[in-house]
Amino acid sequence: MQYPSKLIEDAVNEISKLPGIGKKTALRLALYLLKQDESSTENLSTALLDLRKKTKYCRICHIISDSEDCTCESARRDTSLLCVVEDTPDVIAIQNTAQFLGYFHVLGGIISPIQGIGPNDLNINSLLERVKNSDGAIKEVILALSPTMEGDTTSFYIAKKLQPLHVKITTIARGVPIGGELEYTDEITLGRSIAQRRLYDITSDS
Amino acid sequence: MQYPSKLIEDAVNEISKLPGIGKKTALRLALYLLKQDESSTENLSTALLDLRKKTKYCRICHIISDSEDCTCESARRDTSLLCVVEDTPDVIAIQNTAQFLGYFHVLGGIISPIQGIGPNDLNINSLLERVKNSDGAIKEVILALSPTMEGDTTSFYIAKKLQPLHVKITTIARGVPIGGELEYTDEITLGRSIAQRRLYDITSDS
Repeated sequence: MQYPSKLIEDAVNEISKLPGIGKKTALRLALYLLKQDESSTENLSTALLDLRKKTKYCRICHIISDSEDCTCESARRDTSLLCVVEDTPDVIAIQNTAQFLGYFHVLGGIISPIQGIGPNDLNINSLLERVKNSDGAIKEVILALSPTMEGDTTSFYIAKKLQPLHVKITTIARGVPIGGELEYTDEITLGRSIAQRRLYDITSDS
Repeated sequence: MQYPSKLIEDAVNEISKLPGIGKKTALRLALYLLKQDESSTENLSTALLDLRKKTKYCRICHIISDSEDCTCESARRDTSLLCVVEDTPDVIAIQNTAQFLGYFHVLGGIISPIQGIGPNDLNINSLLERVKNSDGAIKEVILALSPTMEGDTTSFYIAKKLQPLHVKITTIARGVPIGGELEYTDEITLGRSIAQRRLYDITSDS
């Protein structure tokens, strides 16, 4: 594509490096910014630079934070529960359910031999240390990783490592998603949800 | 949605102001930038600021440009043809067809009473001046506006204003898009393409 100016070409090239944004969308975004006040571009630009330069990772739970001590230490949560997740969006997603009141531990990725990510690239050692140093305060570790091959591999690896620490290890339930139609559920999910069927509890709606 | 840090909340808010980008996509983009080198955020940020602060509009054709004189004056194009378009993406789209070798005139929008855009907010007066001052060099003005109600209104307004200048006024052909299936073409397009049928030219493939 030929652009009428070098400035717009540079902007389109930089914007289209973002995931899921192609050249046409990038052009549309660039032209949108051109039509707005200068301050909107300045605000966007500052927010991005600040995010990249000032973001810290909590040294305990490794969640992204404004400082190296996130609220995880002071928060009044259930210290006996620790939920292991891949990354920050998972923390946000789980917090939005309001079903979990324990603490989080962010791995910063999952084991993926194809992408060259091994156990030592993730916050697994600090997880083991955290459980060990809690002196039994952490009673249950919930593995909340995506139900993919990489996620399962990572869960298995972590579970193996946690075994000697005598902590309860659980994983989030897998099955037919609520609101989903049985007919359109894939065979593997449906098959597992039958194999892992549970007693129907007539007193609760879950 | 609750974010784990103020920095990421600010970034998500700013990114999601862009058209077509919601909070979830914004979060994904912000976390992507966090995982990249600091230089990618810097480059993106600089490109956006440069675009917004340094972009000029050519004083003749009003296309966005690095300077106030774009290449339109020096380019070796057909001076007798002037193509009127709504905005820069249209110029890029038409140039990519390689079917037009004349000059462009960018209106900077179209007449839209709902959005409060009247003829005086657009580069229409400068278009009339440009045609008038060409002393007959511009022989044909092609109105290449979108076939919407606003586009048609704008075309009609411009055509009325151009009439006294004795210049040939044309508009781009409308009809069934190439590769489109008749069956799925909307009634108005199909109806017009029948009403405006043309002689089949056996010597050409168009």
